[in-house]
Amino acid sequence: MSPLVIQTISPVLDLGGTFVFAISGALTAAKHRLDIFGVMVLAFAAGNAGGITRDLLIGAVPPAAIASWTYLGVSILAGLITFLWSPAIARFNNPVLWFDAVGLAFFAVAGTQKALSHGLDPWMAPLLGMLTGIGGGMLRDVLANEIPTVLRSDLYALAALAGAVVVAAGHVLRLDPLAAALAGGLLCFAVRFVAIRYRWHLPKAKAPGAEREPDEKRR
Amino acid sequence: MSPLVIQTISPVLDLGGTFVFAISGALTAAKHRLDIFGVMVLAFAAGNAGGITRDLLIGAVPPAAIASWTYLGVSILAGLITFLWSPAIARFNNPVLWFDAVGLAFFAVAGTQKALSHGLDPWMAPLLGMLTGIGGGMLRDVLANEIPTVLRSDLYALAALAGAVVVAAGHVLRLDPLAAALAGGLLCFAVRFVAIRYRWHLPKAKAPGAEREPDEKRR
Amino acid sequence: MSPLVIQTISPVLDLGGTFVFAISGALTAAKHRLDIFGVMVLAFAAGNAGGITRDLLIGAVPPAAIASWTYLGVSILAGLITFLWSPAIARFNNPVLWFDAVGLAFFAVAGTQKALSHGLDPWMAPLLGMLTGIGGGMLRDVLANEIPTVLRSDLYALAALAGAVVVAAGHVLRLDPLAAALAGGLLCFAVRFVAIRYRWHLPKAKAPGAEREPDEKRR
Repeated sequence: MSPLVIQTISPVLDLGGTFVFAISGALTAAKHRLDIFGVMVLAFAAGNAGGITRDLLIGAVPPAAIASWTYLGVSILAGLITFLWSPAIARFNNPVLWFDAVGLAFFAVAGTQKALSHGLDPWMAPLLGMLTGIGGGMLRDVLANEIPTVLRSDLYALAALAGAVVVAAGHVLRLDPLAAALAGGLLCFAVRFVAIRYRWHLPKAKAPGAEREPDEKRR
Repeated sequence: MSPLVIQTISPVLDLGGTFVFAISGALTAAKHRLDIFGVMVLAFAAGNAGGITRDLLIGAVPPAAIASWTYLGVSILAGLITFLWSPAIARFNNPVLWFDAVGLAFFAVAGTQKALSHGLDPWMAPLLGMLTGIGGGMLRDVLANEIPTVLRSDLYALAALAGAVVVAAGHVLRLDPLAAALAGGLLCFAVRFVAIRYRWHLPKAKAPGAEREPDEKRR
Repeated sequence: MSPLVIQTISPVLDLGGTFVFAISGALTAAKHRLDIFGVMVLAFAAGNAGGITRDLLIGAVPPAAIASWTYLGVSILAGLITFLWSPAIARFNNPVLWFDAVGLAFFAVAGTQKALSHGLDPWMAPLLGMLTGIGGGMLRDVLANEIPTVLRSDLYALAALAGAVVVAAGHVLRLDPLAAALAGGLLCFAVRFVAIRYRWHLPKAKAPGAEREPDEKRR
C-alpha cells in the first residue's frame, strides 16, 4: 500500500475502534440504568482510557484523545446512538463483537507502534499495545462496579498481546513496519475469532483455600 | 475587581472547594466504617483527584495538590473534623450541599482556565474543567466500591460542564477572562441550585434487555 | 556500608518487594477465580502500580516499571508460581506477611528518596513514599471489586508513612541518607511487626447516621 493509503486508513481504523469500544461502554451504562451523562462518560472511558493511559505512561501529553476533539465527538456519537436505541443495538451483539475484534487489533498494533516511536524498550512496548486495547474496557467495568471482564475472558487480552508482540518483533528484526502491523493485526483478529467461535478460555486459577466454591458461576 | 482582589479570592475558593469536597469523601469513608486513615485517604482523594488528573493530562507535573502541602493540610483538616463529628456534620447536609455547589463552580472554572493556559484545544478544555469538578467524587466512590453517583445524579456534571463551556467560549471570543469566569461560575451554581431545588434529573438509559427491572431503586 | 554494597542491595530489595507484592495480587486473583491472564494483571498491578503512580506524579516518565522489563518479569514469575501452587502459597501466609512488611519498608523508603531526588517538597515526599508502598494493593483491590483493605487495616499505611517521614526528615536535617533510610525502613518494619503481633488497629469512624449497624462485620 502506498503511504497515502495508510494515512487515510489509519485514522479511520483509529476512530472506528474508538466508536465500537465506546458503544460497549454505553451499553454497560444502559445495563446499569445510568443517566445520559453516565452513558457518555462510560462511552468516552471505554473508547479512550486505554490510549490515554498509554500516552501518560510514555510521556505523550496531552494524550491524543484529550488534545483533539475528534475522539470525544466519536464517543458522544456512539453514546447518543446507544442511548436512543440500546435495545436494538444489543440485538446486534454479534456484529458488534466482530467490530470489537477489529478495534482491538487496531488498538493493539497502533498502541505498540506509538510506544516504540517514543523510544520504549521493545520488550515492554507490547505491554502498552495490549493496554491500549484493554484499558478502556477495564475502566468501563471499574466505573460500573464490576470486576473487569477481561480478567476472566476468552483470550481477549492474549489476542491483543499476540498482535502487539508481532509488531515489536518486526521492529527489533527491522522488518517492514507495515507488514509487521498487518501481520500483528491479523493475528490478533484471528485469535479473537477462534476464541469466540470455539469458546476458548484460559485456565482459571485454583482458589487459595483449595475447597470447592459451588456458588461460582461461569460468566 | 482589581487583580489584587482576584489573587486573594482565588486561593480561598480553591482551598475552600478542596475542603468541602474532602468532607464529602470523609463522610463516605465514615459511612463505610473505615478507620481514620481511610477517612484521610478518601478526604484527600475526593478533594484533589480531579485536579491531579487534570494536571497529569495537561502535563503540569508535579500536580499542584502534590507540589504544595496546603491541599493535603486542608484535606486532613476536613477529614479530622469529619472523623470527630461525622453525625453532626451529616446533619449539616443542606449547607454542605450549597458549599459543594460553590466548590464545583470554582473547580470547573479554574480547571478550564488552567487547561486553556496550558494550550489545550478550547473545544476540549471544558472537558478538563468538568473533570476537575467531578474527578474527586468519582475516585471517592470507586474506592468505596460504589458506582460513582455523578453517573446517575441530578445535573451535577452538566452544571460543571455548562460553567466550563462559558469560560472556554469567553477565551475563544476574547472576552474579559474575569467576566467569563464569573459568568461560568454563576451558571454552574445556578444549574446546581435549580437541580437540587426541583429535583431535576437527566433521562435514564433504557436497559439493553428492554425488560423492566423491578428491583431497580431510585437513588 | 560501602556504596557498592548499597548498589547491590537496593535492586535486590526493589525486585524482592515487587515479587512479594505481586504474590499478594496473584492470590487475590486466585481467590476470585480469575484466569491466568487475570492473575498476571493483578500480580503486575499489585507489584508496580504504587511506583508507577509515583513516577507519573513526579514526572519521571516512562515509569521505571514500564521502562525496564525486569519488573514485569518478576511479576510474571510471582504470578506463575501462585497460579501453579496457590493453595500451597496461601499456607505460607505468615512468612508472606513478613516478606510483605520488608517490601513495604523498602518501597516507602525508596519512594520517598525518589520523590526528594525529583525536587519534591519534603513535606509532600513522604506522601509519595507511602503511595509507593500502598498504591499497588489499592489498585489490586479496586480491580477485584473490593474496598482497598489498606483503608481499614492494621496500621499498614501508617507504618509506611512513619518510615517515609524519617527519610524526609533526614533529608531536611541533612543527615546521612543511608542512616535515614535504614532508620526509616526499620521503623516501618517495626510498626508493622507490632501491629500484626498485637492486632493493633486504628480507630474507626462513626457512621454518619449515628445509628448502630448490626450487619457490620469486622473484617
